[in-house]
Amino acid sequence: MAIVTTFGELMLRLKTPGVSRFAQATSLEATFGGGEANVAVSLAQFGHEARWVSVVPENAIGEWALTSLRGLGVNTTHVRRGGERLGIYFLEAGASQRASQVVYDRVGSAVSGLAAGLVGWDAALAGASWFHTTGITPALSAGCAEATLEALVAAKRLGATTSVDLNFRKKLWSKAKARVVMTRLMAHTDVLIANEEDCDSVFDIRAGNVASGSLDQGRYLGVAAAVLETFPAVRRVAITLRESKSASENGWSALLADREGHAFSRHYDLTVIDRVGAGDSFAAGLIHALLDGRERQAAVEFAAAASALKHTIPGDFNLVTLGEVEALVKGDGSGRVQR
Amino acid sequence: MAIVTTFGELMLRLKTPGVSRFAQATSLEATFGGGEANVAVSLAQFGHEARWVSVVPENAIGEWALTSLRGLGVNTTHVRRGGERLGIYFLEAGASQRASQVVYDRVGSAVSGLAAGLVGWDAALAGASWFHTTGITPALSAGCAEATLEALVAAKRLGATTSVDLNFRKKLWSKAKARVVMTRLMAHTDVLIANEEDCDSVFDIRAGNVASGSLDQGRYLGVAAAVLETFPAVRRVAITLRESKSASENGWSALLADREGHAFSRHYDLTVIDRVGAGDSFAAGLIHALLDGRERQAAVEFAAAASALKHTIPGDFNLVTLGEVEALVKGDGSGRVQR
Amino acid sequence: MAIVTTFGELMLRLKTPGVSRFAQATSLEATFGGGEANVAVSLAQFGHEARWVSVVPENAIGEWALTSLRGLGVNTTHVRRGGERLGIYFLEAGASQRASQVVYDRVGSAVSGLAAGLVGWDAALAGASWFHTTGITPALSAGCAEATLEALVAAKRLGATTSVDLNFRKKLWSKAKARVVMTRLMAHTDVLIANEEDCDSVFDIRAGNVASGSLDQGRYLGVAAAVLETFPAVRRVAITLRESKSASENGWSALLADREGHAFSRHYDLTVIDRVGAGDSFAAGLIHALLDGRERQAAVEFAAAASALKHTIPGDFNLVTLGEVEALVKGDGSGRVQR
Amino acid sequence: MAIVTTFGELMLRLKTPGVSRFAQATSLEATFGGGEANVAVSLAQFGHEARWVSVVPENAIGEWALTSLRGLGVNTTHVRRGGERLGIYFLEAGASQRASQVVYDRVGSAVSGLAAGLVGWDAALAGASWFHTTGITPALSAGCAEATLEALVAAKRLGATTSVDLNFRKKLWSKAKARVVMTRLMAHTDVLIANEEDCDSVFDIRAGNVASGSLDQGRYLGVAAAVLETFPAVRRVAITLRESKSASENGWSALLADREGHAFSRHYDLTVIDRVGAGDSFAAGLIHALLDGRERQAAVEFAAAASALKHTIPGDFNLVTLGEVEALVKGDGSGRVQR
Amino acid sequence: MAIVTTFGELMLRLKTPGVSRFAQATSLEATFGGGEANVAVSLAQFGHEARWVSVVPENAIGEWALTSLRGLGVNTTHVRRGGERLGIYFLEAGASQRASQVVYDRVGSAVSGLAAGLVGWDAALAGASWFHTTGITPALSAGCAEATLEALVAAKRLGATTSVDLNFRKKLWSKAKARVVMTRLMAHTDVLIANEEDCDSVFDIRAGNVASGSLDQGRYLGVAAAVLETFPAVRRVAITLRESKSASENGWSALLADREGHAFSRHYDLTVIDRVGAGDSFAAGLIHALLDGRERQAAVEFAAAASALKHTIPGDFNLVTLGEVEALVKGDGSGRVQR
Amino acid sequence: MAIVTTFGELMLRLKTPGVSRFAQATSLEATFGGGEANVAVSLAQFGHEARWVSVVPENAIGEWALTSLRGLGVNTTHVRRGGERLGIYFLEAGASQRASQVVYDRVGSAVSGLAAGLVGWDAALAGASWFHTTGITPALSAGCAEATLEALVAAKRLGATTSVDLNFRKKLWSKAKARVVMTRLMAHTDVLIANEEDCDSVFDIRAGNVASGSLDQGRYLGVAAAVLETFPAVRRVAITLRESKSASENGWSALLADREGHAFSRHYDLTVIDRVGAGDSFAAGLIHALLDGRERQAAVEFAAAASALKHTIPGDFNLVTLGEVEALVKGDGSGRVQR
Repeated sequence: MAIVTTFGELMLRLKTPGVSRFAQATSLEATFGGGEANVAVSLAQFGHEARWVSVVPENAIGEWALTSLRGLGVNTTHVRRGGERLGIYFLEAGASQRASQVVYDRVGSAVSGLAAGLVGWDAALAGASWFHTTGITPALSAGCAEATLEALVAAKRLGATTSVDLNFRKKLWSKAKARVVMTRLMAHTDVLIANEEDCDSVFDIRAGNVASGSLDQGRYLGVAAAVLETFPAVRRVAITLRESKSASENGWSALLADREGHAFSRHYDLTVIDRVGAGDSFAAGLIHALLDGRERQAAVEFAAAASALKHTIPGDFNLVTLGEVEALVKGDGSGRVQR
Repeated sequence: MAIVTTFGELMLRLKTPGVSRFAQATSLEATFGGGEANVAVSLAQFGHEARWVSVVPENAIGEWALTSLRGLGVNTTHVRRGGERLGIYFLEAGASQRASQVVYDRVGSAVSGLAAGLVGWDAALAGASWFHTTGITPALSAGCAEATLEALVAAKRLGATTSVDLNFRKKLWSKAKARVVMTRLMAHTDVLIANEEDCDSVFDIRAGNVASGSLDQGRYLGVAAAVLETFPAVRRVAITLRESKSASENGWSALLADREGHAFSRHYDLTVIDRVGAGDSFAAGLIHALLDGRERQAAVEFAAAASALKHTIPGDFNLVTLGEVEALVKGDGSGRVQR
Repeated sequence: MAIVTTFGELMLRLKTPGVSRFAQATSLEATFGGGEANVAVSLAQFGHEARWVSVVPENAIGEWALTSLRGLGVNTTHVRRGGERLGIYFLEAGASQRASQVVYDRVGSAVSGLAAGLVGWDAALAGASWFHTTGITPALSAGCAEATLEALVAAKRLGATTSVDLNFRKKLWSKAKARVVMTRLMAHTDVLIANEEDCDSVFDIRAGNVASGSLDQGRYLGVAAAVLETFPAVRRVAITLRESKSASENGWSALLADREGHAFSRHYDLTVIDRVGAGDSFAAGLIHALLDGRERQAAVEFAAAASALKHTIPGDFNLVTLGEVEALVKGDGSGRVQR
Repeated sequence: MAIVTTFGELMLRLKTPGVSRFAQATSLEATFGGGEANVAVSLAQFGHEARWVSVVPENAIGEWALTSLRGLGVNTTHVRRGGERLGIYFLEAGASQRASQVVYDRVGSAVSGLAAGLVGWDAALAGASWFHTTGITPALSAGCAEATLEALVAAKRLGATTSVDLNFRKKLWSKAKARVVMTRLMAHTDVLIANEEDCDSVFDIRAGNVASGSLDQGRYLGVAAAVLETFPAVRRVAITLRESKSASENGWSALLADREGHAFSRHYDLTVIDRVGAGDSFAAGLIHALLDGRERQAAVEFAAAASALKHTIPGDFNLVTLGEVEALVKGDGSGRVQR
Repeated sequence: MAIVTTFGELMLRLKTPGVSRFAQATSLEATFGGGEANVAVSLAQFGHEARWVSVVPENAIGEWALTSLRGLGVNTTHVRRGGERLGIYFLEAGASQRASQVVYDRVGSAVSGLAAGLVGWDAALAGASWFHTTGITPALSAGCAEATLEALVAAKRLGATTSVDLNFRKKLWSKAKARVVMTRLMAHTDVLIANEEDCDSVFDIRAGNVASGSLDQGRYLGVAAAVLETFPAVRRVAITLRESKSASENGWSALLADREGHAFSRHYDLTVIDRVGAGDSFAAGLIHALLDGRERQAAVEFAAAASALKHTIPGDFNLVTLGEVEALVKGDGSGRVQR
Repeated sequence: MAIVTTFGELMLRLKTPGVSRFAQATSLEATFGGGEANVAVSLAQFGHEARWVSVVPENAIGEWALTSLRGLGVNTTHVRRGGERLGIYFLEAGASQRASQVVYDRVGSAVSGLAAGLVGWDAALAGASWFHTTGITPALSAGCAEATLEALVAAKRLGATTSVDLNFRKKLWSKAKARVVMTRLMAHTDVLIANEEDCDSVFDIRAGNVASGSLDQGRYLGVAAAVLETFPAVRRVAITLRESKSASENGWSALLADREGHAFSRHYDLTVIDRVGAGDSFAAGLIHALLDGRERQAAVEFAAAASALKHTIPGDFNLVTLGEVEALVKGDGSGRVQR
């Protein structure tokens, strides 16, 4: 299998039990999550050597985080120690008409202290076929933005394919600032992954109301075409299409487009267990499929199936095997007991 | 915001974990609940001063109950101490075709020892804009029935609007007895809240089979009209319309009618987490909306949205904020993650 | 009520909490289950004297298993002690498009050491109106196959009705071997219970693709007719019809056919809590209904309702009362709270 | 083994998790307990046929209670159904200098509705070698006191040995009333079991301060002698000696005296897990040892060892086997792992 | 009762379950704690009006914290909203020779943004008889140090007694800096509370090795005398004496000294459940006893007993009543069940 | 740090929660454990490259086991896949006078299918400074015994130091058989680790009654001397000395002897959380200390301190760092909170 390097922040994820509200909780489920680490974990389950580059504090919480990732097969050799704290996000799971709530607590997190020149990218990317990051990393601090650019440039120089998931977070930066920074990164990005809202927020490229429950494939093709036109370096654009009927029931599919054509994946009706990290599981699925040399339709089907399964798994990480994804791609979504 | 006084029993609610049956349980989730306390808690979350009048025993369980309510912002200054025990209700949550089961254990509960003259209603209602109770309180004992009448009379005398939720409980009294007592209370009731079954049981006013899954709005208007005709003091009648497809999936909407017209709320398809207390959350939503001066359609929409959200929250209490209800009223029932 | 004897293996059932994957679990829910024990438990809930014949090891786990069954009213007097271990099955519950996974760990289990002549069938069947086993028991070992035949012969000799649930387990034996052994047993079987897949696997009698979500009643009638034609001793055949839309949503109904006619049960849309043991709960419902003298349509309705309820109950055992099944048969599947 | 009949109330026991205070609890551990049922459960573990006579309500909680007892091997055939509720006791476990707290909630419990003539004692005692009850049963109501006398008289008439554990509960009745009733019962009691406090409270027979941590064996012998002198029908008196250093550390031993002599058991230093039900486990141990024909010293050693083990087991019930008690009697209190 | 105002930081306390290590945890118990809030909670349990002054962020976690404190009866009217996050502390409970570990995560916490002039001390202290803070508050930031001085000055001006618990935290500031700041505060402090280590660290006043298990009362008197000599404004000094035999077993007592004399409390042998917050519970006990007008010996006994009980209660808060403390003061540390 | 290879079986460890008995459990804590894997985990925490050689089945449980070990830093590259099941052990934790109970369920476990020639020892031992196994491995099957011998021979040939922990398991083999096999292994063993009972059982070398609570150092020296005399290849013998006062309180120390002299470690009074795996943690501590070049006294102190800490950690694995062990060696066993 291939070597893939991802770069970004890992947070302690503290979720209320079941669908409890914060004020009802007397304990919080403690796992870890973060866009690029989620991608690394998923790729490790698929059998790749997944390296995750980041910074964690030198304390018991930082160690706990690394233990957790290593246990899932992620290579953490290139993680720096430093800073005072690990970022945290609090999650209250919703249900039916009540939305899940995320409270970010990443002020002063270890990774925000990064700057250009601190990570040894040549080592971290040695032998890597792919480099992946998201729009969250450059949003964390000016130093992180510099380091992200540095990483993408190094990756291209070293021959890796690069992917960026837009992932706009309005609490981290303004749309204006995001546009400037992300536009600069697009010059070094081979594959752009996004949802409709993010393209609008960051690049002012619009489709319609994603909460409507009815999706017009044409609109998404328009978004994809506009992205490909705007950013000549980008060779492929992938868009996930979520229909949020409620917090408990979602529709899910995806589009993969390049300058030669496009493919929509099969559509899934999902009973949602945990949708945080679904976009990352899509990215991981797409990276695997493209590394595996699959053509457009097969690639988007694999990525969509992988992320459909993610919705059934508690936590940020998509703990599914290649075999399980392949089975769903082949059409067995019946959920019959495997004995 | 306004002062609202509610009057009734609080019980220790002991629920089997998840959807376990009693014989499978080795622990019971312990919270508190009771129609009028539920309304008080919900109004406190909306920012009102909610006073709850009741009796709890002078023991560790009574103290626990009060601590719980105070923690949610309810004013318990007018709660009397006495009697030997707090009422209890056991709850086994159902799923799909298996109904939830409630086993009441309220024999000899503290509040049943109440009688006319024991509560200082002038103090408990001082400054109050609204008084609320349910048909459960007068059913608990003859003394409770006297105290309920006394409370309604005092509330009207002191200028408060009064509301009564019919809430017929066949294990507490007969239909015949309920009719006599509730009819007497109607002379002092401004807003009557009910579901179709209760109007039939208590006042012999009928619509059709509520378990059918298909609801005829006309029938409900007929019930509302009959109520307004029968009870001249009642100025508004609100009816909740539940379509029980199964214990896991419900339809939900409501009707608010007065002598000038009526309004049906939007209809919600609910994935049910916990439906106990839904009627109380509707009452609280309605009280808030009317205190806030909203007109008929806006009022029933707020109440229906508040109670739709209640179905997603474990426990009797509707722990939602004004902002969350308003968001749903405005149409965001998509359950997208709030970051 | 009647005396019913069942014969088969009981396993320790170790399930991940909620819908966790194995790698996420730090504890496993520990209950017990096994086809014939499940039937016995269900019949005991219905008020019958249910005797379960098996072998459990002489250690703390064996004692725990017996305590558990006795607590549910099963007569364990005829259970032998011996062997080194109790079989185990690990269960990871699925959701939506992710299937539940069962990992069997029954190598060297106590019951596999059985052989003809070891069980005192005359005592175990004394007074019994019915004997039930499944295709799992003869698959466990050659000795178990001999003992199963011995049991069926004894049951017929002593005047009991006999039923066999095909329950083909591909990890226990080959289709070829199953066909030989099960065909031999059919000569002593009054009621054959199966699903479509099992008839195909064991007897090469086919319908269509059970994962399709659309079921053709005609195909099932064909299967039933072929079974009745192939096995002259079999007087009735019952087939459960599952439509697996996903691991969370299933359709459920059943067919009961004999040489005079057939009846399809009502169809249920199920929100699935736990589908393991559903077939056994159907068998128990059918046995009860036939022992109770119900005619074809009433019998299949009772069995289908009993097993519809099973899907709402965690664990292998169908902990429902006669009254609960009757209520669903009469049509109250609305899941309204029972107060 | 022998048949032993016990008579008394069973309660739902609701304990805060770990050592939490009530106000910290969000769930309560739910088991069952009650003096005479505890004795029955312990005797069933020792292999006796233990019959428990009582009244439980006809609802899901009453059924749950019976299921629980039957699962532990107790014969519940002679339990009547009736009344409105099962008694409850709430338990908050203490630690170190903080005492455990019990809040009784037994007002109007099912068993308090008993009266003379309602229980078929001839059937309940048929073949019984022993009858056991405690001072709690006659304290529950005048009817219960009558029924207790009736039971003791019947037991003696039918040839059973009778034992009574004084178990004075000051919240159930006054010392004066207890003295009158218990004195009357002593005329039909063969074996009296008590602790020092109870002898003082009920019969005005005194030793010293049991909280002192230092115990004078002489004082206990004085108490025993006074009891034997006061009640000629009583043939043996057993006194448990607890040294409460703290809620976490206790000393434990016992005295068995008759008119020919006495024996003190070995002394145990206990790390306390759960001391509720320890007295009942002592009674059960004593009944077993005397039924087994052991002489004075051996009998008190068995009873003391059985009850020492009870302190290590969560819940009211002493879930230990004969073998485990014998091992401790023989001196292995080292707690080495049994592999 | 009296009005007491306390001032300091509240943190979300995230503890591993039982005695698990961080790497073993999949959830964290979530409560709240902080020196001055702990004192307020304890005083509220004793019946005082306890006002807590602080800053919490305007998000769901800040609301949760306030709900928790209000539920325990603390007046949070004077709490400001602002800043980006609530401080957190992670706790891994030790046992035997393994020490508990605290990982602080308070960088950028809301309260650190405080400065002189932001809190309305006249309102927060209106009617207050006592003001309490600790050496943690001034260590949080320069602004906090200014605000602490401002508060003490205001409290003295408004006639309140002031107490400061030294509570040196080496991770927050250096000894040198602590000495400068704390010395300045001593000019406005009536009662200084400390342990031996803190006097040494902050004021260079020494006794011996507190981990030795053997304590020399003389040494402590020396420390107290030196403190009283050094700081003329300080009228009383209280020192807690902990003998740490292991994380599970501690000795506990205290000294209260003034210029007229001194008193040592009774000594407690503690089985430790949770020792975090013990010092705060001592402070609260002392404040109550002195407000209640108790003389020196009685005051230190009450404070020592209150804090002995704290060791038995999970969480930072000392959830005990006046009655429970009085019972222990009177000598009942036997831990016998209270029925 | 060094490379250490260990060889043996890993089992799924299923423990009842808290101190529950099996019949009380509704879930089992699921971790993994096994003598040699425990040693590997501990050495990995100390910073060594710990390789664990074994066989696990190719199913979800086998994968789960490997994930767990890798997460703790163990190198599992040399683990073979095969066989049908992972061994299991059930654990019921005792308390006070009630001993913990272990029920082994390792019949037919994957590792028992091993034979000489299947493991590539040259690779598994490449670069290794130390090889460790226990007397459990050769007891599992004849093939395992051959493989163990093969491993020891290879280790010596490749220049590694070898250690064997006697660990006699009477349920796996007879004393006679153990003596033959273990004696053969001693010819290739540099360091023998044992407790007194094992030396007696396996080699007929005796001291006294280990359950007595009083230990005679002289007796242990005698055992050590006899071992060194009997087995000329053995250069060092280490004996752990446990005083089992009860399941909750233990004394703990150790002896390390060679032909030049001996050293007893400090003695620890332990409050026991989990003593399973304590011997393995001692072995790991000893291996680390000897690899680190420490002399006799320092080595035994490190090993004793490491294993003292193990008693405070739930599960088989000794999750402590070098720093924590060093702190205890230096004498801080006070358990004071580390902030």
